[in-house]
Amino acid sequence: MKTLLKGGTLVNVFTGETEKANILIEDEIIIGVGQYDDAEADITENVEGKYLCPGFIDGHIHIESTMLTPAELAKMCVPHGTTAIIADPHEIANVCGTDGIRYMLEASEGLPLHVYIALPSCVPATPLDESGAILSARDLQPLYDHPRVVGLAEMMNFPGVLFNDEDVIQKIRDARKRRKTVDGHAPSLSGKSLDKYIAAGIQSDHECSSAEEAIEKIRKGQWVMIREGTAARNLKELLPLFEAPYNHRCLLVTDDRHPADIDGEGHIDHIVRLAVQNGKSAITAIQMATIQAAQCFGLSYVGAIAPAYRADILVLNDLDTVDVCDVYASGVKVVNHKQICDFSSPEVDKKLLETVKNSFHIEPLKPSDFYIAEMDKACRVIRVIPGQLVTENQICDIQWDKNNGIDTEKDILKLAVLERHKNTGHKGLGFITGVGLKKGAIASSVSHDSHNLIVIGTNDEDMAIAANRICQTGGNVVVADGKVLAEMKLPIAGLMTEESGKKIAAENEAVRHAVDMLGVSDGIEPFMNMAFVSLPVIPSIKMTTQGLVDVNKQERISLYCDETDEA
Amino acid sequence: MKTLLKGGTLVNVFTGETEKANILIEDEIIIGVGQYDDAEADITENVEGKYLCPGFIDGHIHIESTMLTPAELAKMCVPHGTTAIIADPHEIANVCGTDGIRYMLEASEGLPLHVYIALPSCVPATPLDESGAILSARDLQPLYDHPRVVGLAEMMNFPGVLFNDEDVIQKIRDARKRRKTVDGHAPSLSGKSLDKYIAAGIQSDHECSSAEEAIEKIRKGQWVMIREGTAARNLKELLPLFEAPYNHRCLLVTDDRHPADIDGEGHIDHIVRLAVQNGKSAITAIQMATIQAAQCFGLSYVGAIAPAYRADILVLNDLDTVDVCDVYASGVKVVNHKQICDFSSPEVDKKLLETVKNSFHIEPLKPSDFYIAEMDKACRVIRVIPGQLVTENQICDIQWDKNNGIDTEKDILKLAVLERHKNTGHKGLGFITGVGLKKGAIASSVSHDSHNLIVIGTNDEDMAIAANRICQTGGNVVVADGKVLAEMKLPIAGLMTEESGKKIAAENEAVRHAVDMLGVSDGIEPFMNMAFVSLPVIPSIKMTTQGLVDVNKQERISLYCDETDEA
Repeated sequence: MKTLLKGGTLVNVFTGETEKANILIEDEIIIGVGQYDDAEADITENVEGKYLCPGFIDGHIHIESTMLTPAELAKMCVPHGTTAIIADPHEIANVCGTDGIRYMLEASEGLPLHVYIALPSCVPATPLDESGAILSARDLQPLYDHPRVVGLAEMMNFPGVLFNDEDVIQKIRDARKRRKTVDGHAPSLSGKSLDKYIAAGIQSDHECSSAEEAIEKIRKGQWVMIREGTAARNLKELLPLFEAPYNHRCLLVTDDRHPADIDGEGHIDHIVRLAVQNGKSAITAIQMATIQAAQCFGLSYVGAIAPAYRADILVLNDLDTVDVCDVYASGVKVVNHKQICDFSSPEVDKKLLETVKNSFHIEPLKPSDFYIAEMDKACRVIRVIPGQLVTENQICDIQWDKNNGIDTEKDILKLAVLERHKNTGHKGLGFITGVGLKKGAIASSVSHDSHNLIVIGTNDEDMAIAANRICQTGGNVVVADGKVLAEMKLPIAGLMTEESGKKIAAENEAVRHAVDMLGVSDGIEPFMNMAFVSLPVIPSIKMTTQGLVDVNKQERISLYCDETDEA
Repeated sequence: MKTLLKGGTLVNVFTGETEKANILIEDEIIIGVGQYDDAEADITENVEGKYLCPGFIDGHIHIESTMLTPAELAKMCVPHGTTAIIADPHEIANVCGTDGIRYMLEASEGLPLHVYIALPSCVPATPLDESGAILSARDLQPLYDHPRVVGLAEMMNFPGVLFNDEDVIQKIRDARKRRKTVDGHAPSLSGKSLDKYIAAGIQSDHECSSAEEAIEKIRKGQWVMIREGTAARNLKELLPLFEAPYNHRCLLVTDDRHPADIDGEGHIDHIVRLAVQNGKSAITAIQMATIQAAQCFGLSYVGAIAPAYRADILVLNDLDTVDVCDVYASGVKVVNHKQICDFSSPEVDKKLLETVKNSFHIEPLKPSDFYIAEMDKACRVIRVIPGQLVTENQICDIQWDKNNGIDTEKDILKLAVLERHKNTGHKGLGFITGVGLKKGAIASSVSHDSHNLIVIGTNDEDMAIAANRICQTGGNVVVADGKVLAEMKLPIAGLMTEESGKKIAAENEAVRHAVDMLGVSDGIEPFMNMAFVSLPVIPSIKMTTQGLVDVNKQERISLYCDETDEA
């Protein structure tokens, strides 16, 4: 089966040149670039006046952050020109272990979006977390045999690297032995500590928030991933990297991006566009988004329009706005005039699907399960801050006699994190301020990184209603006030849905509306803030299934104050 | 064991910048680059005023062309800054098959010169050749498991690629499956034929003789290897590649280089120097010679001075003359003030060594073995051309009654190619002109690519003396006149010696002197010309063990003319 794209202008990512060239494709491979006016083909497309560039590659993404299955994500991001992603299934692995990674591999087989996997390096994120699985080096080893496993994903445990933790070093050694890329994650690390971290074999970083930080990492041999996600947006600070001599060592990534943003702004195309809007060369940005991403991950024959390369090709109306008209993936036209064509979703092994869809293992909850033992001491209350994931420790005197300590007038709400993977009954109970709910409760099965059940409420009854709804449905984001007011179902590991991006966006909108009715402080995205209140690697005080954690000291602390607390 | 290089100026091959930086090495790995003035180290070297750059990598070399073992080659080229080579053991494989490749791997284990192997793709070079081994895809497959096997070497059989020869395609498929680099060899191929050749997966080319040819190949995604060997010297024509946007897709190679040239002019350092002398940037050339060669072959952590990288480091007195003072290989100082330090030679398995040292399987020869049956017809005589490997077909009337057709006055000498691998008794006999010997005979066990026994003589007696000397010694280059006048012993597969480069250069000098005494035409390098008279892939007429071959038609032809011959 041959396809001829005739009359277009090719973006040559090897040289940065543009040139008029016909492109001949046989099955999934480009077999000719140049003078093929007279070539015989089964399909001939006139692309005169259009630009042709390779399909975009997202060098680092968590599919779970989009809440979509790989197939539904493909429907959203392929029309934006993304034809390959390197996904780190860190979230689902925290819930389902290697079954979660296998699910991601099976659920992404044969899509028009080529899904490569970097194996999650840090499950759980810290030993203080109580996740559904603990993945050792030995657990990861067999997964490297899968042809789409291309690396070890973001090594967040930099203390583990710096202090030669045996299992951390073994994970890196295993990836290196197989010539797989070892991705880094080391925000703000520099100088000798950075050297030591890189010297273990860490080859990339996507956490640079300044050009200075990025240039140090490039000089030390790392690939720098310029990230523009939903929460973390680093492009503006990193614009100097679009100039020589740094541009050749960069790629573009989204990391965590909400489906509404993909739908609205775009995906990798959005980053290219932003670069152009800021005066940078479209071709430089396209090189980052294509051949350089392929080089970073050792993907041969991917990321360029040249003979032997996989025919992932974008037909652009315009180079500077990166307006994607048609998309070819593996030689097949999968987007036609901006519309994604039908494709069959991969079949996932039934038993595996059942496993990831039944990840909740917890008894039904009663209001009394949220009761906090009263004590005549001041309490440590987590304060959330608008627009940030860091929290503060606030010491408060609690009025126990009134609603077991909840005081909506003072914005002191109850917070619960309930272990939900292994029915251990472990739970952390405490208080949170800054959220601003006046009534009802909210609950979620998305709570980084272990994704236990997290609930914030104005009373124990609504907390139980919201929490039980999640347990019943196997994963959910719920708003309750006497009954369930709105919800967004996430039955796959409590993180993802098989529904479409449009559907999830509509449900998300309903949830936001409902939570607004309960009253929320300005600048607070309650579910986003709530999802990170349980992550004990982000300062300064977080709630786990075993109670509060002082993140800076990396140790558990009591809800009740003692003399060592500062006011 | 820690080593600190203090006060030098680093050539950063990622950015092309130079910067003052201390370098801290632990064992074989660079662990720090930057502010390490106060670092504790077992050895501290003051390199103030010096430049530090990564060790050079030769992207394509035939070790056999140097006639040296890997260890002796290391002694010659490491002082010139070459710390890694990608070697194609094509010649020894033609003699000894996979044993030859295994010998090369064992004989290069643990050297200060890191020897990577690309597996020979075309053994024999053509089915018209009678080599010691035929290597199919299946024969090569197990060799990929060796950690230093990084690719499939120059795919010379481009008709095989263009016409989908099953075994040729399988060899490429095997390399691709294992994510190894597939090297090309396609002089002058362009347009649609080039597309088809590249589309099979061929990723590089070292045969470009013009910038135009090279730029087409770069645009089509190939790495272009800029070659400067002994016979083939392409640098001057390819100088435009040292400029953007082409420079980032090039590397530097020697292919075939005589030890006298390595000793006299240099190795990869010579190519860098030549580029600088021609007005190009030393840093650009160094990038080609280091990180880009590593990228071409997917060698991670090699080719740069950065944390995690193997500590292959050159201390240069000067950047523009690339004057190599000291060399570190895997963190060990192996060249000190231009002097190579002692290192132990690898132990080769005794049985394997015996095999490669006993590659001659042929009965002793008598003068009568060189007798040519007289026939009353004109003969096809091979004409050699000064400075070229191509030959011409010259039709001559032979005076049979006088010395069985030899006529030194008319410069018609006898030529014999005798099968020597399997004692088949196959031999090709005929005549050659242009060499100019007046007396005696010369013989060699180096005759591309099958390396049968080749002899040129002014009489049958001296031909037998020279040929028998080679058979006795198991490989040799011999000049004889009544007795052996001079020789250069090549006992390993008839191609290489365990002696030093200095010794082989001296022997080579003696051989040249002796052959000059026999009388040689101007511009003829008799052994070089003779070595290619047997290679039936270079136009236009060649001698094989089964007689003459018309290279253009790729068919055997008779010594005796028929009516189809042109005058």
